[in-house]
Amino acid sequence: MRTPRILISNDDGIHAPGIQCLIEVAREFGEVTVVAPNSPQSGMGHAISLGKPLRMYKENLFEGQDGYACNGTPADCVKLATGVLMAEAPDLILSGINHGSNSSVSGIYSGTLSAAREGALQQIPAIGFSLCNYSHNADLSTARVVVREVIAQALAQPMKASQLINVNIPDVSVENLAGYKITRQAMGRWVEEFDQRIDPYGQKYYWLTGKFLLEDHGEDTDEFALENGYVSICPMSLDLTDYDQFRILDRWQFSKPVS
Amino acid sequence: MRTPRILISNDDGIHAPGIQCLIEVAREFGEVTVVAPNSPQSGMGHAISLGKPLRMYKENLFEGQDGYACNGTPADCVKLATGVLMAEAPDLILSGINHGSNSSVSGIYSGTLSAAREGALQQIPAIGFSLCNYSHNADLSTARVVVREVIAQALAQPMKASQLINVNIPDVSVENLAGYKITRQAMGRWVEEFDQRIDPYGQKYYWLTGKFLLEDHGEDTDEFALENGYVSICPMSLDLTDYDQFRILDRWQFSKPVS
Repeated sequence: MRTPRILISNDDGIHAPGIQCLIEVAREFGEVTVVAPNSPQSGMGHAISLGKPLRMYKENLFEGQDGYACNGTPADCVKLATGVLMAEAPDLILSGINHGSNSSVSGIYSGTLSAAREGALQQIPAIGFSLCNYSHNADLSTARVVVREVIAQALAQPMKASQLINVNIPDVSVENLAGYKITRQAMGRWVEEFDQRIDPYGQKYYWLTGKFLLEDHGEDTDEFALENGYVSICPMSLDLTDYDQFRILDRWQFSKPVS
Repeated sequence: MRTPRILISNDDGIHAPGIQCLIEVAREFGEVTVVAPNSPQSGMGHAISLGKPLRMYKENLFEGQDGYACNGTPADCVKLATGVLMAEAPDLILSGINHGSNSSVSGIYSGTLSAAREGALQQIPAIGFSLCNYSHNADLSTARVVVREVIAQALAQPMKASQLINVNIPDVSVENLAGYKITRQAMGRWVEEFDQRIDPYGQKYYWLTGKFLLEDHGEDTDEFALENGYVSICPMSLDLTDYDQFRILDRWQFSKPVS
């Protein structure tokens, strides 16, 4: 069997401990290409750079592994990797390991998932990994075990083109990991609490803060899995259509176009 | 009946002709609050600003209508509007009118839709409007008629909290408008073609360009509706779970956690 080509990106930046861990594990399985942001891009959603030129610079990440630092968003990194850098499309795209969870609606804001989603949009199977610990210095030993298990499965029974998976890892020791659960995205929302301040020139400014409000306690959700010590494996769709709304919208009555 | 409170944002910036048209029509139906980016934010996806302070400045948009220009993303604008500016939540959030279509997978990259989606995430019904013409000077007369019809329907049979709708308007005259269709998101993808250049200092840089490749010609899609002169009304989901993948993932075999 040909050695798998694996493309890796993230949103915490190319020097974050999470991506280093992901690269190390992925190298056990295949040939790894790294294109990742040169600065933190958390909360970038699926942003792409339309108005500014993109640049990338090769650097040595560690013994035997080079990577490319890019001035764009996570989605830009994947576009540059597949569009400019790689002669052939990768077999698998991995993003993360994010320092912080991307469960529930956080997946909508997540830069980590946008790198993976960009791969899936290009018909390349993709997986985002996030650890439920925001610290730069978080213990990655459980994440390392989980990433190894998930990559092994993804390659053993190859994923479909466009298959996108959001893996969230609870912040527990390997001994306390309960197992793995296939989950759905819990519904919830961020309730904003802006921190209003006055700058030295007398002008108001605001820091976005907030807390997460879980509104869905279903036992099949990502949030439930994580709270109970399970790895959440949530498949994600590229089709954002809400088919349940069709019967509501069928009641809308439009006049004939004015002519 | 109480006058509806309508919040308006966009991604082309507060001075774009599209948002001015949307404000003018919305004022026929209710009390309008405007918070929009102070610079173009196309392609911003669902980005939010975690690392920089947000600012907003009040300005007079036209006779009788003030607005707030914000240095953040479209999603930031909606968060600031509901979190800081408005004493009560709006009844409806409108975004656009975008200069350019947001059909098929473009909705994933769209700043216009992210403002609407942010509303829906806050349990406020929301609609994004896009016109299939990228020109700043596009003829907005058909869009004006369509926006009026859609707002009237949205208020006549009130939308559900969290209901999100993506309206795309074909670039045809009112006389040639075929009607309205409830649609699903067509699958397709952007094929990147980076424009590689060398800066005056000898360094490479890249402009992201590309063309859209439609891979789904279903007659129930947004793309089909637009090609045939219909307004596309595509309901969108906040739940990104791909339920069809559950049976695939059930075949994954994980070892017991190492203990």
